[in-house]
Amino acid sequence: MRFEVKIEVSPRKGIANPEGSTIERTLPALGFKTAGDVRVGKVIRLQVEADSSAAAKTIAQDMCDRFLSNPVIEDASVEVLDT
Amino acid sequence: MRFEVKIEVSPRKGIANPEGSTIERTLPALGFKTAGDVRVGKVIRLQVEADSSAAAKTIAQDMCDRFLSNPVIEDASVEVLDT
Repeated sequence: MRFEVKIEVSPRKGIANPEGSTIERTLPALGFKTAGDVRVGKVIRLQVEADSSAAAKTIAQDMCDRFLSNPVIEDASVEVLDT
Repeated sequence: MRFEVKIEVSPRKGIANPEGSTIERTLPALGFKTAGDVRVGKVIRLQVEADSSAAAKTIAQDMCDRFLSNPVIEDASVEVLDT
């Protein structure tokens, strides 16, 4: 079976987030005075061929640990979407 | 009230996704032969001060339309998370 997997990789709290800081600095000038604490991460969507949803999650988690995220500076979450 | 908003910005179907293609090309060599169709997008999380969840969503959608995404090449979805 084919599963759609969504992996979200975000900078950990306390780690510099230059893209988020830049957006945040620009917001007031653009008229958004009530928004803040902007953090920008990556979202990776892929298709995994596996026997079950749990197996698909294991494969994606393994990818995530090995090369899609850097656990020193990033948090990652893996989610198998219903298809 | 303070709401956490999540904005996901992904390249539209048919638009080149070099980061996703690179990951995809590397997967077989790393032992992942059952995965494919990798697409990489951005996820932006921010805090919005608003009267209601709907108002927070409107503010975030407005940001998204104005400068967080490029509708010619990207799809965006806005979601207000429960806090």
